[in-house]
Amino acid sequence: MATKTKTIEPIIWRENSLFLLDQRVLPHQQRWLEFNDSSAVAEAIKTMVVRGAPAIGVTAAYGVVLAARQAWDMAAVNWKEALTASLDELADSRPTAVNLFWAIQQMQRVMDELASDQSPEHHLLEAAQLIHRQDVEANKKLGQFGAALLDDNSTILTHCNAGALATAGFGTALGVIRQGFSDNKVTHVYVNETRPWLQGSRLTAWELMQEGIPMTLQSDSAAGLLMASGKLDWIIVGADRIAANGDTANKIGTYTLAVLAKYHGVKVMVAAPVSTIDWNLSDGSAIPIEHRDSIEVTHFNQEAIAPHNVKAVNPAFDVTPADLIDAIVTEAGVILSPTAQLMLKLKQN
Amino acid sequence: MATKTKTIEPIIWRENSLFLLDQRVLPHQQRWLEFNDSSAVAEAIKTMVVRGAPAIGVTAAYGVVLAARQAWDMAAVNWKEALTASLDELADSRPTAVNLFWAIQQMQRVMDELASDQSPEHHLLEAAQLIHRQDVEANKKLGQFGAALLDDNSTILTHCNAGALATAGFGTALGVIRQGFSDNKVTHVYVNETRPWLQGSRLTAWELMQEGIPMTLQSDSAAGLLMASGKLDWIIVGADRIAANGDTANKIGTYTLAVLAKYHGVKVMVAAPVSTIDWNLSDGSAIPIEHRDSIEVTHFNQEAIAPHNVKAVNPAFDVTPADLIDAIVTEAGVILSPTAQLMLKLKQN
Repeated sequence: MATKTKTIEPIIWRENSLFLLDQRVLPHQQRWLEFNDSSAVAEAIKTMVVRGAPAIGVTAAYGVVLAARQAWDMAAVNWKEALTASLDELADSRPTAVNLFWAIQQMQRVMDELASDQSPEHHLLEAAQLIHRQDVEANKKLGQFGAALLDDNSTILTHCNAGALATAGFGTALGVIRQGFSDNKVTHVYVNETRPWLQGSRLTAWELMQEGIPMTLQSDSAAGLLMASGKLDWIIVGADRIAANGDTANKIGTYTLAVLAKYHGVKVMVAAPVSTIDWNLSDGSAIPIEHRDSIEVTHFNQEAIAPHNVKAVNPAFDVTPADLIDAIVTEAGVILSPTAQLMLKLKQN
Repeated sequence: MATKTKTIEPIIWRENSLFLLDQRVLPHQQRWLEFNDSSAVAEAIKTMVVRGAPAIGVTAAYGVVLAARQAWDMAAVNWKEALTASLDELADSRPTAVNLFWAIQQMQRVMDELASDQSPEHHLLEAAQLIHRQDVEANKKLGQFGAALLDDNSTILTHCNAGALATAGFGTALGVIRQGFSDNKVTHVYVNETRPWLQGSRLTAWELMQEGIPMTLQSDSAAGLLMASGKLDWIIVGADRIAANGDTANKIGTYTLAVLAKYHGVKVMVAAPVSTIDWNLSDGSAIPIEHRDSIEVTHFNQEAIAPHNVKAVNPAFDVTPADLIDAIVTEAGVILSPTAQLMLKLKQN
């Protein structure tokens, strides 16, 4: 059976501009924002107009295109020097998702091969579009690899949004779920609302409902009760950065789910493109964890939901050690019970 | 060192009326609602004007006083028959907190001893005020028992609100924390916001800040990261119903915390008055779990935070098995590593 692909595309390049679907106002508004300035793109990543590690990577690649165009218009043959600050600004937008740095590095390689007297825009746009296209292809491939691991009548829990909105399209965790539903293997999907930003309520629920995949939304705290009920087969999540031994940084709460899963015999799948693997980090302890403004916890749409001047923390990610992960699923293959050795084999393939 | 007790009192009887501090609008408004009708009291319990198992019990006792006054005014010598529907209505207001049924039963016993031609209000009011007073005393006593279990420099995590607002005053879990802070044993308290109703953000944070107890608010999902950091010594929570073997129903998410605690070697304390123990249930499997309207998950103050028509579940409680609990602390004593046998000894004391 063919995969039903609804065309949710969070990132579009059209007529020399970058357009981002503003994920801050979904699902109630579908608002597209236009970008022609790389600083504005960096700000859009920081403020989560676009979020999700692969989507951040693709967006940053287009940000480099805009930065190069601006540098060429301003500095002509000195465009490479003029570009440096913009690249730093893009790289500083968010610290955890490694796809951001990976994409900027890919673009840097293309730039290194361009002459100084050559207008860079066209070449860089081609490179960004290749990154964009390859991300969708990777998602579809890893979706198939992941779905192949599911038994019939599987019930899944997912956390945050690792869907079409978090990628160039199709999705990682939701790519596996889409493919699994299409293959008649996924019966039901539970969606954690994912405080504080509510990616689950606002984005994942919306994507699944658009495709008619049976789903139930719940508070993050209800995951324990769900697992104790014996209903759940798999937790499937995306990743923001995977260390060389398989330790995985993902949305805050993923680690809690993995501990619960271990206790209940539920399996844990991490679905991510190879670009999410940071081969430079031997384990997860060195992954930088972004701490966002506590206002995301203390306020809801500018309205205070906690006492004035309350002290709050807002870690955006946590790290799940590899020994709590049953499968890391990439477009290059599947690693069961990940270890540094098994990860290395994937790298060498 | 004496216990500093700020007078947060959620339930007040004054000039023949019941006044409840409306917990739906805290911390930003301190609004008192006046009740002279038992149906309105049942509705107030259902809609969480007042919440927390012990506070629900005390409120229901006053609800019986109002019901009896109404029945006497309406039916005179037939007041006992006229009262039945009102008692049922109070008992039907919320299913999980056993203190509700316990309090109605206590009041029923007093009624059984009254003559039909005797105005019941005065006697029942005395009984309700005794329940009210005894709850505060129980909290103070169990607070001391609980604090005695803490080592110096303890860091605590609490979930939901088991404070003065959840009781007749002082609190169960927060009673232990208050006493522990007063005894210089509690260094810091982490507070889970406690979705969907945000009892942590709105009520517990407010109570702790009023007393100057150092605290940090976090999303429920951040508990795993906190425990992995090694900072945490105890999870201290209240209870809505404790079975005869120590299995404990409490706010949704408590079970998740207890599983995390087991994995990380963090200790779990349940603090509750003896009236929270349901000796009729041999274990937690028979505790009725209230499922509240999904609008609490899908909406925030009438504003939708999920797609229109999304399917959501909203279980209000989960059950933590006794083997994940290190101590049940009551006013009658402490049970370490609770079992049915040890619980029975407490009953016999």
